[in-house]
Amino acid sequence: MRDVAIIGVGMTKWGELWEKPLRSIFVESALLAIQDAGVDKIDSMVVGCMSSGLFIGQEHLASLLSDYLGRNPVPSTRVESACSSGGLALRQGFIEVASGMSDVVLVGGVEKMTDVTGCEATYALGTAADQEYEGYHGLTFPALYAMMAVAHMHRYGTTRDQLSMVAVKNHDNGSKNPLAQFPSKVTVEMVNQSVMVADPLRILDCSPITDGAAAVVLCPADMVKKMKKPMVRITGSGQASDTISLSSRKDITWLESTHLAALKALAMAGRKIQDINLFEVHDCFTIAEIMVTEALGLAERGRGGKAVEEGLTLLQGKYPVNASGGLKAKGHPVGATGVAQAVEVVKQLRDEAGERQVKGAKRGLTQNMGGTGGSALVHIFEAD
Amino acid sequence: MRDVAIIGVGMTKWGELWEKPLRSIFVESALLAIQDAGVDKIDSMVVGCMSSGLFIGQEHLASLLSDYLGRNPVPSTRVESACSSGGLALRQGFIEVASGMSDVVLVGGVEKMTDVTGCEATYALGTAADQEYEGYHGLTFPALYAMMAVAHMHRYGTTRDQLSMVAVKNHDNGSKNPLAQFPSKVTVEMVNQSVMVADPLRILDCSPITDGAAAVVLCPADMVKKMKKPMVRITGSGQASDTISLSSRKDITWLESTHLAALKALAMAGRKIQDINLFEVHDCFTIAEIMVTEALGLAERGRGGKAVEEGLTLLQGKYPVNASGGLKAKGHPVGATGVAQAVEVVKQLRDEAGERQVKGAKRGLTQNMGGTGGSALVHIFEAD
Repeated sequence: MRDVAIIGVGMTKWGELWEKPLRSIFVESALLAIQDAGVDKIDSMVVGCMSSGLFIGQEHLASLLSDYLGRNPVPSTRVESACSSGGLALRQGFIEVASGMSDVVLVGGVEKMTDVTGCEATYALGTAADQEYEGYHGLTFPALYAMMAVAHMHRYGTTRDQLSMVAVKNHDNGSKNPLAQFPSKVTVEMVNQSVMVADPLRILDCSPITDGAAAVVLCPADMVKKMKKPMVRITGSGQASDTISLSSRKDITWLESTHLAALKALAMAGRKIQDINLFEVHDCFTIAEIMVTEALGLAERGRGGKAVEEGLTLLQGKYPVNASGGLKAKGHPVGATGVAQAVEVVKQLRDEAGERQVKGAKRGLTQNMGGTGGSALVHIFEAD
Repeated sequence: MRDVAIIGVGMTKWGELWEKPLRSIFVESALLAIQDAGVDKIDSMVVGCMSSGLFIGQEHLASLLSDYLGRNPVPSTRVESACSSGGLALRQGFIEVASGMSDVVLVGGVEKMTDVTGCEATYALGTAADQEYEGYHGLTFPALYAMMAVAHMHRYGTTRDQLSMVAVKNHDNGSKNPLAQFPSKVTVEMVNQSVMVADPLRILDCSPITDGAAAVVLCPADMVKKMKKPMVRITGSGQASDTISLSSRKDITWLESTHLAALKALAMAGRKIQDINLFEVHDCFTIAEIMVTEALGLAERGRGGKAVEEGLTLLQGKYPVNASGGLKAKGHPVGATGVAQAVEVVKQLRDEAGERQVKGAKRGLTQNMGGTGGSALVHIFEAD
């Protein structure tokens, strides 16, 4: 397999983009990535999107997007793995370049979520759970993660304040990200007193409904050298599955798929988790980030809440988590999230992250997951 | 890139499978393929499905299916390209094995289409067209292909009887396929007099709404040799895109994406179209098969109707097309179709196709397309 690098990244402001259709949102980010890469020709496209079918009544998405990007007849592939669709697109692009099948692959992620009502969006997102064993019985994602939170609090003593500290940290970081949907700071008190969604999760524990896209351009590492561009290699890629239904899970306080995907990605890169300088992880709810830090090995099992309280994951901490603001503040257009994580890591490794720059960062990790962890993708990035 | 082979295939009877959920339909075919392959361990899964979101309210499909197949934590990927989702899954699996990323990859396709009303199914299928420029204005797939048929008839003199002869041929072949949804013979008169759907297309010009799945197991060719199993290599893979909307197409009587995908696949295999002994192609409507035979180069441009009339594509003809019965008789569970085409070709190349065997076939081709040809996948298979 060939060495693979990211030669260009692109992302526009996320939010409720009522005036723009999905195709325009995607094309804007894709053009930025292609411009940043400085390439004329792309050989192939991979697009991550969770549910354009339910959100905007459009399937055959990869054909639509190669068309609107003016890139026909390039092969164009859509992948779906619920909220980890973006991470999965990155992996498929990585494999395609590594194999030698294509040289320059555009990897994009996109979701347009605000063209439907809140109820319809909750239903569409709920299709990431097991429809027959969870959805039909009324379970929504806030409810599923609330059960995980209650179990974590009960077993490990994780506190309400610790959950809130995740939101406070990520909004602090997000306030330094001009592309974030909610670049506004919050306090522990504000989170603690915000509207209850599914006990113990309150509205400020939840990532928002977002329209947005992100894109990266992959190519062989040799090409980056020849073009004399900053080198950011993808050195590890891990993917794993777990039961889709929470009821089948051995332990609902532990994210096994994230744990296994991280082990695979780190093994491929020949690194330990302690070698990594920054982390973009899937904080769809505050409890999710706490559980992810444990599954990655940044905190011991059950100590993820304590870790955030002790400042381990702050921007200036030992293991900065979600410098971008995370899903919480940056927004969570589900299919785009995994690609946007890669955009942030590349900007950080190129020392282009402005006020939220993690100083001297040379290695970054992204972790993206679907549903309650039924799928997980982890990637490792390294600057030369 | 490594040489890739198909070591196992599986498919069950297609039809209106009201008593079975999607997950069971998929698992039955997958288990047959794994049993046929004689492997214990699979490293990865790729699943093609067009719209489980709209048909059964379920996304995150690859996670669900690895779970129900008892294969967690293997990486599990869903791909979507409308009705060519199955062909796309095959290509992704091919790239994954060729790259060295995985050794044994299960590639499946599935669709459960009969849990919704006919109107809802027509809407879901319609999301393969451009929702903003075609769908919102009332265009459905029979209507889109009807326009292509009218243009083809007007420009090239293709006749009503020639359209019907495609259906007659494919139902003849399908009557020899015990897994076909409609293994019943029809006559030119029956097709000509069947209920009008969208002028000139009648109900017997159209492929049916179907529940079904199909699966194949891919591995490095070396492994097939070691296991002393019949060798069927995938020697070529081509993918191309075209405008999603028919209104943007330069020529609505020509399938450019199929043409380009075939050129790529044949170039990779180092073959000419005349070297191929049998063809499984995308006859979603009778006019589609006529246009595909032209795009592949089996008939000259505009002569596809004449070719079927002259018997070129009959089971005992020079270029047998759709020995399986095609989408017309076998059924068309959209995400499964591209994988089922590979199942048929492998059975033919292994001399296991019974009454519909193409004698002495050593090389086969599959052609699978999305929408009105917005995407197309072509694969070449060769027996040693």
